[in-house]
Amino acid sequence: MERRSTALEGEQGGEAAGTRKRLRVRFNEIDAAGIVFYPRFFDYFHMTFEDFFLPATGTPYHEWIGERQIGFPAVHIETDFRAPLRYGMELEIALSFPRIGNSSFVCRYEVTDPATNTLICTSEVTVVTSDVKKMTPMPIPPQLRQALERSPGR
Amino acid sequence: MERRSTALEGEQGGEAAGTRKRLRVRFNEIDAAGIVFYPRFFDYFHMTFEDFFLPATGTPYHEWIGERQIGFPAVHIETDFRAPLRYGMELEIALSFPRIGNSSFVCRYEVTDPATNTLICTSEVTVVTSDVKKMTPMPIPPQLRQALERSPGR
Amino acid sequence: MERRSTALEGEQGGEAAGTRKRLRVRFNEIDAAGIVFYPRFFDYFHMTFEDFFLPATGTPYHEWIGERQIGFPAVHIETDFRAPLRYGMELEIALSFPRIGNSSFVCRYEVTDPATNTLICTSEVTVVTSDVKKMTPMPIPPQLRQALERSPGR
Amino acid sequence: MERRSTALEGEQGGEAAGTRKRLRVRFNEIDAAGIVFYPRFFDYFHMTFEDFFLPATGTPYHEWIGERQIGFPAVHIETDFRAPLRYGMELEIALSFPRIGNSSFVCRYEVTDPATNTLICTSEVTVVTSDVKKMTPMPIPPQLRQALERSPGR
Repeated sequence: MERRSTALEGEQGGEAAGTRKRLRVRFNEIDAAGIVFYPRFFDYFHMTFEDFFLPATGTPYHEWIGERQIGFPAVHIETDFRAPLRYGMELEIALSFPRIGNSSFVCRYEVTDPATNTLICTSEVTVVTSDVKKMTPMPIPPQLRQALERSPGR
Repeated sequence: MERRSTALEGEQGGEAAGTRKRLRVRFNEIDAAGIVFYPRFFDYFHMTFEDFFLPATGTPYHEWIGERQIGFPAVHIETDFRAPLRYGMELEIALSFPRIGNSSFVCRYEVTDPATNTLICTSEVTVVTSDVKKMTPMPIPPQLRQALERSPGR
Repeated sequence: MERRSTALEGEQGGEAAGTRKRLRVRFNEIDAAGIVFYPRFFDYFHMTFEDFFLPATGTPYHEWIGERQIGFPAVHIETDFRAPLRYGMELEIALSFPRIGNSSFVCRYEVTDPATNTLICTSEVTVVTSDVKKMTPMPIPPQLRQALERSPGR
Repeated sequence: MERRSTALEGEQGGEAAGTRKRLRVRFNEIDAAGIVFYPRFFDYFHMTFEDFFLPATGTPYHEWIGERQIGFPAVHIETDFRAPLRYGMELEIALSFPRIGNSSFVCRYEVTDPATNTLICTSEVTVVTSDVKKMTPMPIPPQLRQALERSPGR
């Protein structure tokens, strides 16, 4: 299937709401070495993060950023790349939240090739709930905390 | 719905196979003026083009490019932008093929805001069927020509 | 030379201030067909446009957009691609302003390969001087009009 | 100055050849929260890495990748973001090589705001010298090893 960003499960807002995404590597994500340019993995992760909000919290990410003026700048990243991605490959990204603090939380991304069940990449991105204008930390709002806490991978 | 790239119709390969796509404007497609950076529209068009091939021709784009070594470099573009796109807006892109030559064909993209039925952008991109290695023109293969000819907008 | 975005001439604000730029095709601008992904040309054009403002008007583009709240959304584009760009190629982009209206003006970009003097691409991008917040047209400010009028290609 | 990618020092191939770069945050690198989209930092790092090769090794990166078929896929990343980047800010990126193995080496990037000498971001990206086609490890070629070893930050 050529679709991108299909929600696989949890669309109705259950335990795993918004925590799995399938993508297919696109034509323009390839670099001159013939594999996905590694910064594009972080684009994939952000798409996954962005798409988590509506099914998990009931409010789309663009309303968190816009109307609510709440953003989630990254402060720390640790990533292991285990295998290259080539054009046309499908990938599945699983998002979990292994650590949840007062204002910060860790987003863990596991990328697998569903055709072979090979692990492609794992990444932990720590983000801080922040006032978008001032870029100052704020407590995780209860609506989001609930969504993080009922998600898998804790 | 937060999904991206949902095929709206024609998934089974009928007349309009692969010729409509819905996207939602993403977080990172916005520029410092607060609207979608205009080159990103061409990224949207290429996603639409790429996703046309599997439902319409039965062969995914990455096989046309890879195994078959057939590519479609753009040679001419005319585009009208009628309204800006803001973060979170949904858009619908309709692809049609108003002119089909021996090796070249015109891809017409119409972007509308399905919430208001406003026309956002129209673009015609002329591409030339080409040998990927040599970047020399070649006739449109019959499998693709059939798909182009049974698509709407002629 | 591996430098990017070197101003070639006009750095002191003469006739051609800010109207020529050299770039080298980067690793991540290549697509799965091995050439520069055509939407990246518009990224190149916007870099050229952005870098025009400081030498030509004395005010950097980010101040036009930020402090002054004046932006330049594209409304019409016509582009001819004559030759593909491959990784590592150098290109020279010449910017001129063939038509200047009350609020809109045409930015013409000519891309050449300086090694062979081959014409790679020409593009005309019509932009409209606009209030960034409201995205409504406004007259070209005199400071910018002067810069456009003394630039080449009229 | 609006220039991008100015080599600050080491242009003649001395100790620090190719290890410092200045950039200015561009219009399209901003996201819907008004700061540089964090994956773009990795684009900045790759530009810095790419531009290191010509002054430091005498051979441009595109020849390493192309003619020599030697690439440098990332296998591990650790990054700390300390302050957001806004549109128009200048940044200075210092590249050093704190650990050099047989086939892998660590690229350390320190991003500072030269106007205030504030540390913006530090990142360590471990890359593996690899055959581009097979994506298998190979020893660091002597020409590159010399360049890495005489660079600062060891």
